[in-house]
This record gives sequence, C-alpha cells and structure tokens, in this order.
Amino acid sequence: MNNLEQDTICALATSPGMGAIATIRISGHKSFEVVERIFSKTISDKNSHTVHFGLIRDKGIIIDEVVVTVFKNPKSFTGEDSIEITCHGSVFIQQQIIQLLIRSGARMAKAGEFSMRAFMNGKMDLSQTEAIADLISSTTKAQHEVAMHQMRGGFTSELSGLRQQLLDFASLIELELDFSEEDVEFADRSQLESLVNEITVGINSLMESFQLGNVIKNGVPIAIVGAPNSGKSTLLNAILNEDKAIVSDIAGTTRDVIEDEIVIDGIAYRFMDTAGIRETTDTIENLGIKRSFEQVKKAKIVLLLFSIDDTSAETIIAQINDFKGKNIQGFQTLIPIFNKTDLIDLKDFDLLKNEGVFISAKQKTYLPELLTKIKASIGDTNIGNQLIVTNARHYEALQRSYTAISRVKEGLETQIPGDLLAMDIRETLEFLGEITGSVSNDELLGNIFANFCIGK
Amino acid sequence: MNNLEQDTICALATSPGMGAIATIRISGHKSFEVVERIFSKTISDKNSHTVHFGLIRDKGIIIDEVVVTVFKNPKSFTGEDSIEITCHGSVFIQQQIIQLLIRSGARMAKAGEFSMRAFMNGKMDLSQTEAIADLISSTTKAQHEVAMHQMRGGFTSELSGLRQQLLDFASLIELELDFSEEDVEFADRSQLESLVNEITVGINSLMESFQLGNVIKNGVPIAIVGAPNSGKSTLLNAILNEDKAIVSDIAGTTRDVIEDEIVIDGIAYRFMDTAGIRETTDTIENLGIKRSFEQVKKAKIVLLLFSIDDTSAETIIAQINDFKGKNIQGFQTLIPIFNKTDLIDLKDFDLLKNEGVFISAKQKTYLPELLTKIKASIGDTNIGNQLIVTNARHYEALQRSYTAISRVKEGLETQIPGDLLAMDIRETLEFLGEITGSVSNDELLGNIFANFCIGK
Repeated sequence: MNNLEQDTICALATSPGMGAIATIRISGHKSFEVVERIFSKTISDKNSHTVHFGLIRDKGIIIDEVVVTVFKNPKSFTGEDSIEITCHGSVFIQQQIIQLLIRSGARMAKAGEFSMRAFMNGKMDLSQTEAIADLISSTTKAQHEVAMHQMRGGFTSELSGLRQQLLDFASLIELELDFSEEDVEFADRSQLESLVNEITVGINSLMESFQLGNVIKNGVPIAIVGAPNSGKSTLLNAILNEDKAIVSDIAGTTRDVIEDEIVIDGIAYRFMDTAGIRETTDTIENLGIKRSFEQVKKAKIVLLLFSIDDTSAETIIAQINDFKGKNIQGFQTLIPIFNKTDLIDLKDFDLLKNEGVFISAKQKTYLPELLTKIKASIGDTNIGNQLIVTNARHYEALQRSYTAISRVKEGLETQIPGDLLAMDIRETLEFLGEITGSVSNDELLGNIFANFCIGK
Repeated sequence: MNNLEQDTICALATSPGMGAIATIRISGHKSFEVVERIFSKTISDKNSHTVHFGLIRDKGIIIDEVVVTVFKNPKSFTGEDSIEITCHGSVFIQQQIIQLLIRSGARMAKAGEFSMRAFMNGKMDLSQTEAIADLISSTTKAQHEVAMHQMRGGFTSELSGLRQQLLDFASLIELELDFSEEDVEFADRSQLESLVNEITVGINSLMESFQLGNVIKNGVPIAIVGAPNSGKSTLLNAILNEDKAIVSDIAGTTRDVIEDEIVIDGIAYRFMDTAGIRETTDTIENLGIKRSFEQVKKAKIVLLLFSIDDTSAETIIAQINDFKGKNIQGFQTLIPIFNKTDLIDLKDFDLLKNEGVFISAKQKTYLPELLTKIKASIGDTNIGNQLIVTNARHYEALQRSYTAISRVKEGLETQIPGDLLAMDIRETLEFLGEITGSVSNDELLGNIFANFCIGK
C-alpha cells in the first residue's frame, strides 16, 4: 500500500447535475472521523450496512438533512471503511458537502481511485475493476452482458485454473534444475505438453472473441456513399426512424442520445460522419473525393446507394465493379442498394437481382430486409456464456501470452534445456497475469484507472 | 387515502445520466413483494435502515450487483414501506431495473408523487414538501438557506401557535351562539383583539418578506441599454469575468452553467436577453426600439450606459432626463454608467459626479464600485433567522388571510354579531391552513406536485 492509500477520499458517486437525491462516497481509514465532524450523530459505533438519518452542519448552519450509510472495513466496495452520504440532489448542496468533507480531512478522489483501492485491497482482480468501467458506460444489451460476465470474474475463472497448473509445472521444472546432476524429471513432459495445448487453444479462442468484442464495445461503423440525389439522407432518416419505433424510453431516465445510431439485437450500428453525408455533394462517378474515401476506409460496412430511376442496370453494375476495382482497404462488407423502386418497373432491373437490395427509402419499403442484411454481415453475435475480450489491453496481453506459450510448445518439441523452458513458462504466466492484475506495476495501474470516472 | 396511494411506485431518484452509481426508489405497501421478485435475497424479514448486497436478475440473467436499502413503514421518507436500489450508474442498467420493477408489479411514479405521499401520510406539511422542491433546485446560498428553513418547518412554527389560538377563539364564539339567549361572552374580546393584532403583524411581515423572497428565488433581472459602441458587451464580459474569478468549482460536481449571471452575497443577478445586448444596434437616442423597451420593462435594475469620450456631460444629462421622462414602468433602479474613463480627463465631467458611476469596462476599473451599487439597490438581503416567503401560492394565501383577518378586526371594532365574527375567523383559518396544507383539496395538490421532478 503506498502513501496515496493512506488518505481518506471523497467524491460525488451519482451522475452530476440535479436530481431528487445524490450520493457522496467517502473511503479510507479516517472516514468515520471525517464524517462525524459534520454529521449530527455518532456513527463509528454503528453496525456495518446500517443507515442513519441526521443533519450535515457547517459551523452550526444546516446544510442538509441526509441519510448516511455505514460500510465497515472489509465489508465495503473498496475494502476500507466507507460511508455514503445521500443528500438532496441540489448541485449547491452536493458542492457544499464535498467542500465540507475536504475541510474536515478528506481529499477529492482521483479518477478510478475507489476501484483502484478495491483492486489493491484484493476485493476484485484488475479485469473485474476494468469491467465496472465498461459496465457503467454500457448502453446496449450486448455491452452490458459482456461487461457483467467479466465483472463477475469471467477472466479469473477462465484463466486461473490453467495458470495455476502452469505455475505448478514451472516450479517442478525449476526443482529439476536443483537436481541437474541427477537427470531427474519431476515435471511430466507429456502432461505439460497437453496443458500447453489446452492453454494455446484457450488463448486462441479468447483472441478470436476480440473481433466480436470490438463490435460490441465500439459498434459497427457504416458509411453511406452515393451520388447526389441518390437518397442518402432519406435512407438514413428512414433507418433511424425505423429504430425509434422500436426503442421505448422510460420517463425519468433520459437516455444519452446518440444520434445516427441504431441498435439491432444489442449491437450498435453507427452511421459515420453523417453530417457529412447529409451535406455531401460527392458524386459516385468520382469517388476520388477525399471524404468519401476516408469514410469508406473507416467503415466496416459500406452502403453503396444508387437511384435506379435515372440509371440503367448495366451502368449500375459497371459502377459497382468500378467501386470494387478501386480496391479500397478497410471495410468488410459492401452492400449495393437500389433506391427509388417506387419510380420504376422492377422488371427492368432483373440484372441487379443478386447484386444488392432494392428499396424505396421514401416509402420505407424493404427496410427490414436491408437491416437483416446489415446484421447478417457481422456474423454470429450470440454471446451465450462465453467470455468475450473487449479490452485492447487484454488482447495485447493475450497476444504476448500466445507468443510465449508457442515458444514453450516449440521448446518441448525440440527438448530445450529445463532452465530455458522454465523461462518461457514464467513469461507466459506474467503476460496472463497482467490481465487479472496478479502481475502489475504502478504505471500500468495509473494508465488503467486514469480513464475511470471520478467517484468510481 | 385515494386509489393512487394503493399502488407501489418506482422512479430513478438520482440525476439522470451516467454516474458511478444510481439509485432507484420504490415506495408502497407492496415494495418488498415487488423487489423480492427480482432480488437475490429475502428482505421483508430484515430490519429497517439496513443495507443488503445482492443480485438483480431478470429470468436468470444477472442485470446488476446492487445494494438494497430497506426503510420500513413508517420510518421512511414517504411513511410507507420503501426500498432504495443502488445500482451501477449505467443508463442501460437504470432502465432495465425500472422496467423489471414495472413488470413485477410497481408502476412509474408521477412527478412529486413520493413527496405527495410524505404529505398525505403526515410526514411533513405542504409548505415543507414544497420547500424540498425549492431546496433541490437551489443554486445559491440564499436560495438554499430560505428553502432549508422552510423545509425544517418554518411556516408551521410561525403559524401553528397563532392558528391554534385563533381556532380556540372561534370555538368559544361558536359556543356563545348555543347560549345566544343568555347573552354570555365566553371569548374575551380584548384578548381576541390583541391576538388578531398579533396575527395581522405576523401576516404583514411575511407578506413583506416576499419581495426579498422573490429576489432570492428568481434573481434580479438587469437590463443594459446604451448606444452602439457605448461598451455594452465589454461591460457585460468584464462583470461576468469578475464573477468567474470568485466562483470556484469542484471537480466531479458540474455546476449547471447559467450564462450571464453573477452571484453576489448569495443573490443571483441575471443579465436579460444578453444575446440581444451583444448584437443590438439600438441607439440610446432612439429608445423607441421595441426590444430595449421590453428589456427595461422586465428589469429590476437598468444600467444606462454612455461612452463619455464622444459625448459632453450636458448631452448625457439631457439623455438621462430624456430616459427618465419616458416614464417606463417596471424597473426599480436606474444606474447611469459613464464608460471609457480611460479615454478622457475626468475633470471635464464633474457635472456627472452625482449622476452615476464612472467606469472603464475595457480596463476593468471601478467594477467593484458598480457591483456594490447594484447590490445596494436591492436593499437588505440578510436573511438571518426569519422566514422568507418565496412561493407565490403562499403569498396569495397570505393576502387572502390578511383580507379575512382585517374583516375580523373591523368586526370586533363595530361589534358585529358572534356568528358573523366566527365566519370571518374560520375564513382566516382556512386561508392560513392552505399554506401548510391543513386545508387542501385534490386540485390544489395536483397543481403543486405536478411541478416536482419525478423521483421526488
């Protein structure tokens, strides 16, 4: 425990702004002392997990009537003595109480400091604390599910067994080294080999889950490109309206509005730079215009829009091939869309039947078909009970673990000396340990928690 | 208790949006039943004011790890069985839990419904519940102080004694009527007279406090008028910057930014329609332009700005008199300001010495003097321990009480018959009772609570 953890910290824990109530959280070994300086009742003698109504006073002046909740070390989120003050939700009162706490001996918490203490005090591993941040910022069902699974210890249960076995092998091999004169083999090489295989498969499948994880966490960027007047903004509005009809909101819990995004089966599809789309005057004939290219490169899905009332099927096919021929890197799926079916006779466009989707953005026909196609292009998004990697830090640690375990495997095959084998095993263990934080350092922790919100 | 109160209600109680944690409040006699359907522990057998960690599940799927606080009837804010679920502060989780509560038998609370139940169940009087809404929306020290005093029962302690005495007199006078044949006088008329005087003085001083109350609650609107180039926007920015140097903010508790407002000694001074001021091309010579007039009419203080580098003292005095001559109704204080002292020799403007304030908005000189003058024009804003009326409803009830008690006084002087006297006393009692809600009706309550936020 370093110096920082000696302090007693405080922060607003609920969403900033006005509400019926707000909660300020205090943690540290002086929590009771600090709060008793401003609260009308003694609380240090109260049981953990009890709630006490009283007054917060500043030099005799009543700041608020509050409810104070007592959490005693180690039965708290941080593992330290903790207190929650629930006050009336005026911003003025929130500020007054925090100022008062600071004047009474607490200090303002840094971003993520409550979670960092929970980790330091062994209440949860590193991947679990990271999952809390993900959980809080999750806005879709899929994000929520993945974060919840991870917060509930997904990584630990997935990795800790294998890691422990590998650790046992490392110890046995290191033991062999002490008896190196005697040519003994405490560690059964064939058992080790099958364990290494098992770990390789495990790491592999976790790494593979990162693609889905990324889609879940960051959404799927979609670019709509097309000539002026091909109906880009009409299509976008039609798709967004389609979505709005599905989403139902509950009064009192304002959803952070993310414009130009639809959520299908818990996955967010984000229409990129749609301000640009709305105003764009790029022409499909001349895709050299920079913005379209940039959008296409960043997109996972490209919707290539044609108005079929003024273009022949042959020209459209030529243009699709032209687009493909440009060989733009980055996106995964191209969906040509033939818009304005309301203005033409579909029979004239038989040629395009297998080339893309016919719609009328204006009349909102065939939109569900289009959405199904968009969804299908992402592949299976069923999470089930599997652990999904969504965090780039975890992915990198897995990559490094994979390289190290591959060296172990190779070493076993080529029968390298035990000391070298042990080194490779230790390296694998270290990289795997970085994920759950059994191996960590101050810089790593600093980077991780700096991205948390204050109060968490 | 009407049908509404049979329901068990729920709502987000903390500020909407993302935070580390969020609290959902449930109240009603089925609170335990509803929550136990979704929570992993039995809570109905737990003590009031205790806290329980567990899981919220929806058909087996974990929605969140939460802390549940139990408040048992009558020891809760509403006086009913109440539960607070504190979850991770993701908007998604908040929505999921509320939806789950609704599917489990609760319904969404209406605006102010928790407070209304607190009132209905005798936990606080009407003026106290109204004070909660004021307390939550208070952004200045003065607003907070006034609301807190009222929430702590200011009206009740101020009125209930006098009201009880008056009630006793009413009963005695009504008793006299039963013995009307016998010409007895149970109610001592001179005692009644001195009580009536006392009540009159009390009502009067409360009514007088409304002016200050209004200033505290709604702030002081200020209009800046002046010719183009007289320095309106420079002055405004200088004043606002002056203020920003004073205001210090605390990380994590974002203050709702109110633009173009300064707070001096807890009172907010609001610069009206300042967007207009910034862009205006009105001329002072021609105040006929509608917007300036409208601003001046709505303002409490008018800052009449002159640039003295291009106008003689005589012309300025003529223009001030011209402005006064227009006899615009509404504002209380006119402060002429002579700007751009940096460009002239003050000696040449001796004539203006007692006419207004000299400043240099550009060089920010004499701004404190100007602020002192603005503040002084509002009069004494020292609240001390007195009850301040801030609510128009209370003011109206006081006005009607005043009229009624004046009739009682008159009746005593002219010795009207006891039955008429009793009627006037009863009427006074009814109007006074409206303030604290000892006399109320559904329509009145509906109007009051409709302005509350949901979750309160």
